[in-house]
Amino acid sequence: MCKTAGSCQGCLHYVFDYETPKTLVIPNIRVGCVFRFTQLLVVLYVVGYVCVVQKAYQDTDSVISTVTTKVKGFAFTNTSDIGPHLWDVAEYVIPPQGDHSFFVLTNMVVTPEQTQSRCPELPNPSTTCVDDCDCIEGHSDPRGNGIQTGLCENYSTTVKTCEVLSWCPHEVDTKLRALMSAAENFTVLIKNSITYPKFNVHRRNILPHINSSYLKMCEFNRTSDPDCPIFRLKHIVAEAGEDFQDMAVKGGILGILIDWSCDLDWWAKKCFPKYSFRRLDNKHPVNNVAPGYNFRFAKYYKKPDGEETRMLIKAFGIRFNVIVFGTGGKFAIVPTIVNLGAALSFLSLVSRNIESCIQKRNNTGNL
Amino acid sequence: MCKTAGSCQGCLHYVFDYETPKTLVIPNIRVGCVFRFTQLLVVLYVVGYVCVVQKAYQDTDSVISTVTTKVKGFAFTNTSDIGPHLWDVAEYVIPPQGDHSFFVLTNMVVTPEQTQSRCPELPNPSTTCVDDCDCIEGHSDPRGNGIQTGLCENYSTTVKTCEVLSWCPHEVDTKLRALMSAAENFTVLIKNSITYPKFNVHRRNILPHINSSYLKMCEFNRTSDPDCPIFRLKHIVAEAGEDFQDMAVKGGILGILIDWSCDLDWWAKKCFPKYSFRRLDNKHPVNNVAPGYNFRFAKYYKKPDGEETRMLIKAFGIRFNVIVFGTGGKFAIVPTIVNLGAALSFLSLVSRNIESCIQKRNNTGNL
Amino acid sequence: MCKTAGSCQGCLHYVFDYETPKTLVIPNIRVGCVFRFTQLLVVLYVVGYVCVVQKAYQDTDSVISTVTTKVKGFAFTNTSDIGPHLWDVAEYVIPPQGDHSFFVLTNMVVTPEQTQSRCPELPNPSTTCVDDCDCIEGHSDPRGNGIQTGLCENYSTTVKTCEVLSWCPHEVDTKLRALMSAAENFTVLIKNSITYPKFNVHRRNILPHINSSYLKMCEFNRTSDPDCPIFRLKHIVAEAGEDFQDMAVKGGILGILIDWSCDLDWWAKKCFPKYSFRRLDNKHPVNNVAPGYNFRFAKYYKKPDGEETRMLIKAFGIRFNVIVFGTGGKFAIVPTIVNLGAALSFLSLVSRNIESCIQKRNNTGNL
Repeated sequence: MCKTAGSCQGCLHYVFDYETPKTLVIPNIRVGCVFRFTQLLVVLYVVGYVCVVQKAYQDTDSVISTVTTKVKGFAFTNTSDIGPHLWDVAEYVIPPQGDHSFFVLTNMVVTPEQTQSRCPELPNPSTTCVDDCDCIEGHSDPRGNGIQTGLCENYSTTVKTCEVLSWCPHEVDTKLRALMSAAENFTVLIKNSITYPKFNVHRRNILPHINSSYLKMCEFNRTSDPDCPIFRLKHIVAEAGEDFQDMAVKGGILGILIDWSCDLDWWAKKCFPKYSFRRLDNKHPVNNVAPGYNFRFAKYYKKPDGEETRMLIKAFGIRFNVIVFGTGGKFAIVPTIVNLGAALSFLSLVSRNIESCIQKRNNTGNL
Repeated sequence: MCKTAGSCQGCLHYVFDYETPKTLVIPNIRVGCVFRFTQLLVVLYVVGYVCVVQKAYQDTDSVISTVTTKVKGFAFTNTSDIGPHLWDVAEYVIPPQGDHSFFVLTNMVVTPEQTQSRCPELPNPSTTCVDDCDCIEGHSDPRGNGIQTGLCENYSTTVKTCEVLSWCPHEVDTKLRALMSAAENFTVLIKNSITYPKFNVHRRNILPHINSSYLKMCEFNRTSDPDCPIFRLKHIVAEAGEDFQDMAVKGGILGILIDWSCDLDWWAKKCFPKYSFRRLDNKHPVNNVAPGYNFRFAKYYKKPDGEETRMLIKAFGIRFNVIVFGTGGKFAIVPTIVNLGAALSFLSLVSRNIESCIQKRNNTGNL
Repeated sequence: MCKTAGSCQGCLHYVFDYETPKTLVIPNIRVGCVFRFTQLLVVLYVVGYVCVVQKAYQDTDSVISTVTTKVKGFAFTNTSDIGPHLWDVAEYVIPPQGDHSFFVLTNMVVTPEQTQSRCPELPNPSTTCVDDCDCIEGHSDPRGNGIQTGLCENYSTTVKTCEVLSWCPHEVDTKLRALMSAAENFTVLIKNSITYPKFNVHRRNILPHINSSYLKMCEFNRTSDPDCPIFRLKHIVAEAGEDFQDMAVKGGILGILIDWSCDLDWWAKKCFPKYSFRRLDNKHPVNNVAPGYNFRFAKYYKKPDGEETRMLIKAFGIRFNVIVFGTGGKFAIVPTIVNLGAALSFLSLVSRNIESCIQKRNNTGNL
């Protein structure tokens, strides 16, 4: 459009010409009201919803967290299997490390003195037999206890079952009652440190205003001690809407949710943990397989003659999962401009449509 | 601009005056076509891409998840180290808790009857010696097995090596073959509960329409049983593009990925788990150190005379990591306005440029 | 507005009429300068801040990660409790699996030969007694060691305490010194594979240009070997600003942070791990309960007569948490349009205000 030095004046003229739409000023109160009302809506939306409710002017970051847990308490049991026994933390917390996920033993089926040997299967329709022909050597039923030897042996005086090579004797887990009912009074100390790497913010769930002597004797309570990081297991389970003794029989999974949603702007400085508790497995669903929570582990021993024996423990209990989540938000220029700009453009579109609607009617009227 | 009560009329006039740009209506079919086509593009982009493909009108939340796993199956081995042995879940799943990450033992090097004592090192260039002068008392080679005592002893009739204080005898792990090949037929039941805290939505991977009897006998298959939460290990490994027996020898890490991407709007209600499987470690890279996956653990015993012995096990196997991810989306007003507004403003800019281009040509033509 | 076939011409006329605002071209250099300067600001903001600094044109995804760790090294101790003892990986790394979180034992209080029996409590104000009346049968102090039998026994020649049923003898953990000071020279190999599922991108922290022989002898150093995935524990602790021997006494938690923030656009291809180290628990806060990091675990034995004994170990040490975080970004059309559009609309609003300000003055002047 502007070639050679001669037309440079014209070129500059193009660059610095200022172009503005001609506007009509219509002194009409009704139209003006609608127009100003629309503008009010824009402002209300931007200030009220975007800024106050959604805090859309903030840049966000996800939390990075470390959790240490320490359970305290004793339980005493007296069963026929293992006799009188005092359970301390080293025995009933599995694994012992005190990670964000820990399991407290509340019930168990103990099968002591198992050895690698041969014994008849537990009787059920697929294992009962009449003679050796009913048992297939080398066959392994996934729901059984071992590999069949091909023999049919007396399980009791009335029932014969296929013999298996396995850890014998087999576990019999019919009777179930909450063995360690004292577990409800165990307490757990949860230490949680979090970081918002983008904002270089570090926080702990042990708040700065809490002192040592308070921590030695406090116990979490939503109303009286909401900042105490020591929780009684019974209290956790109750807040999740469950009964501890009920849950202790078959086990379950309980979530200790710590919400670290933080408003990190200097005028807000709200960054405290909010605790909530929720049962994470289903209690009585229609389609439940293996309800509750249990697993098997063994303690291995060696007899004086060198033979390996083990004590198999089917452990029922409550797995506590400390789940830390939350997003931290802090004022940032890009999301502010994106949200304000988008809101304004969207609603200016609305108001422009109102305008053109009015204008068209006016034009029609004028013609 | 409006001072004192006298000019209040003028003040109101300013507030309620309505200002609108004067527009020209140009009855030109070609120009109109371009204009309407541009508008069509806007609508197509907004409806087609932003709404249907990207679902940009949704607010999103990250998934919070709990996983329980339960492995079932037996394996029988007969080795010279430990004799005939039946492996059950309590022995081959490590750790036994059934967390989101579990390890299935598929191969091992067993060193039974280790005691704290002195024995000659395994022969290699840095440990062979001629006489005691070659061995430094207190020296500890990080790649060796213990702390040198300063003596040079016969390792065999032909080789002499430095004696070390260590758990003796040392582990010799040259021969490697998949010991527990039966592990490929183990099954694992995965129970997974998820939560989208922002939307208060809870889901399980055991879908509501599944009943107990189906769960007792089903097995995951992408085509015939896509909803069954019971997986055969061989099937998982095969879907990840690997051979189980190959992987069993040196071990590896396998990801069971559960994608819970959910559209939580009431008209969609699509929220089902999608399973996929991927090997997470590298199989045969050029620069592989310590390929596969293994670790050492020990079972500790006490001899009748009180001396501590241990059975060291170098465990090879497959670590299964259940990785749950996904974002839930639900209609929300802020992202809708942000996306629509931004799209409209961006594309109105494009159309305005078309306009001013046309206008300029018209102006030029008119002049 | 257009009814019946007769007015179809008029209807089409409405559809293809092109409407454009009338504009004034004002050849005023000063006004033009302000106008162009505002436009320059828009361009600078969009190009400089949105594109270069914030990369707001990118769609983002969170990292999915797998970590394997392998510690190497020996430590020799000689204590009165357990005599001379060589510690290898199978003993001092707990749990042994080499997960993303591993614990290295650096100090311990060993209580060997505990059995389930009765013994007097450790003396403290609440356990000392004069006669049996001071002890309540069945009482269990959460800070004690067991359940009281109701008897008052001699703890030493001078002190009498209540007898408890418990694992006896009790642990006495007064003296604390870093037992395994050699742990500072242990090394850990960290293998980390990551995935950005949305972009189908997989990466490892063992970079492609690294070969096996380098990996066999390298050690991480921020300046000379920034890509080596083998870390000396002392170095990690030092980079976190702590002293290893100090931390070894009472234990602690150390975060190995791997930042995988990736720019995955083809012109950038920047996707390397950045390591950083940070102590995650508080060292010397005012309100510290249970400072450091420790837990108790036990090794269980059976005596020749069948009685169960255990060796209780209160383990102090450093828990290393490998924390992988980061977001991957890749160019995508929706965030580009959202950001550009919003920025333009926002700043066009600013410039329109300038315009209307100028226009008003002009109008006033003209009138």
